[in-house]
Amino acid sequence: MSIREANSEDFDAIWPIFNEIVRAGKTYAYPTNTTKEQAYKIWIETPKKTYVYEEDGNIFGTYFLKTNQAGPGEHVCNCGYMVSSLARGRGLATAMCEHSQEVAKELGYKAMQFNFVASNNEDAVRLWKKLDFETVGCLPKAFNHPTEGYIDAFVLYKWL
Amino acid sequence: MSIREANSEDFDAIWPIFNEIVRAGKTYAYPTNTTKEQAYKIWIETPKKTYVYEEDGNIFGTYFLKTNQAGPGEHVCNCGYMVSSLARGRGLATAMCEHSQEVAKELGYKAMQFNFVASNNEDAVRLWKKLDFETVGCLPKAFNHPTEGYIDAFVLYKWL
Repeated sequence: MSIREANSEDFDAIWPIFNEIVRAGKTYAYPTNTTKEQAYKIWIETPKKTYVYEEDGNIFGTYFLKTNQAGPGEHVCNCGYMVSSLARGRGLATAMCEHSQEVAKELGYKAMQFNFVASNNEDAVRLWKKLDFETVGCLPKAFNHPTEGYIDAFVLYKWL
Repeated sequence: MSIREANSEDFDAIWPIFNEIVRAGKTYAYPTNTTKEQAYKIWIETPKKTYVYEEDGNIFGTYFLKTNQAGPGEHVCNCGYMVSSLARGRGLATAMCEHSQEVAKELGYKAMQFNFVASNNEDAVRLWKKLDFETVGCLPKAFNHPTEGYIDAFVLYKWL
C-alpha cells in the first residue's frame, strides 16, 4: 500500500467514496447533495494538499490538508479523511492521520484542528483521542444529524 | 444613525476600517497584508449579507453574516464586526451584534458562532458574554499575536 499525493485523474476513484459519505450526512459539513463538480473543488482544488491511500492500484481512502485560519491562525492546519466502506476497520484512518501530521510538520504547521466532529461519531472521536488529539470545544446542537436531530459537535486539536 | 445593508459603493468607506484593523493583526484571521481587492471578496462578495453602521452619511462600522458550516451545520451562522477607531466605545459593536442576531433569525438560522476570538481581546469577550454568548471552546496557542506571540483563541456560541 502507499499514501501518495492525489492528482486530478484520481478524482474518479475519490468521488464514490466522497459521495457515499457526504450523502449520508452523518459526518461532514457539506450539503448531502454536493455535486461531483463541487466535490472536486472542495477536495482537490481548495486544499493545500490532497492524498490518496492506494492498495494494488485501488484507492480506498483519501485526505486533504489545508490552512484552518489565515493570518494570525495560519500555523494551524485542518484535515479531512475519508475511507471507503469497502475498507473500514483496517486502520486506514489511523495511517492517514499519522501521515497527515508528518506532512503538516514538513509544511511548517504547528498544530492541527478538526472543527466539526459529530459528537455521536464515536469511532472518529476514539481514533483522534488515541492519536493524542484533545477535545477543546463542544458546539451545542451545531450538527443536524439525519436520524438524531440537533446534536453537539466537537472541536479537536493537537499541537504537533 | 442607521444600520443598513451595504452595497458595493460602500466599500470605499469600509476599506479604511478593514485595513486598519486587519493590518494590526490582533483580532481577525486575515493576512495583515490583505489587499483591498481581497478584502472586497472577504467582506462583500463571500458573505450572505453585509451591513454598515451609518451616522450623518458617514460609515463608522460594518459587519458580515454567513453560514458557518454547510450541510449538517447550515443552521449556524457566523458574523464579523468592525468599528472604526473614530467611533470606539460608543456601543456600535453591541448595536451591530444585536442587529445581526435579528437578521440571523429572520434568515432562519438557529445559532451564531464566533470561531476565532483572540483570548486577550478582552473588550470583545466581555461584549459577547454580555450578549449571552458562551465560551464553548479554547484553542491552545492558535492565535499568533503580533506582540504576545502564540495565545489561545476562544470559540463563542449562542443559540438564538
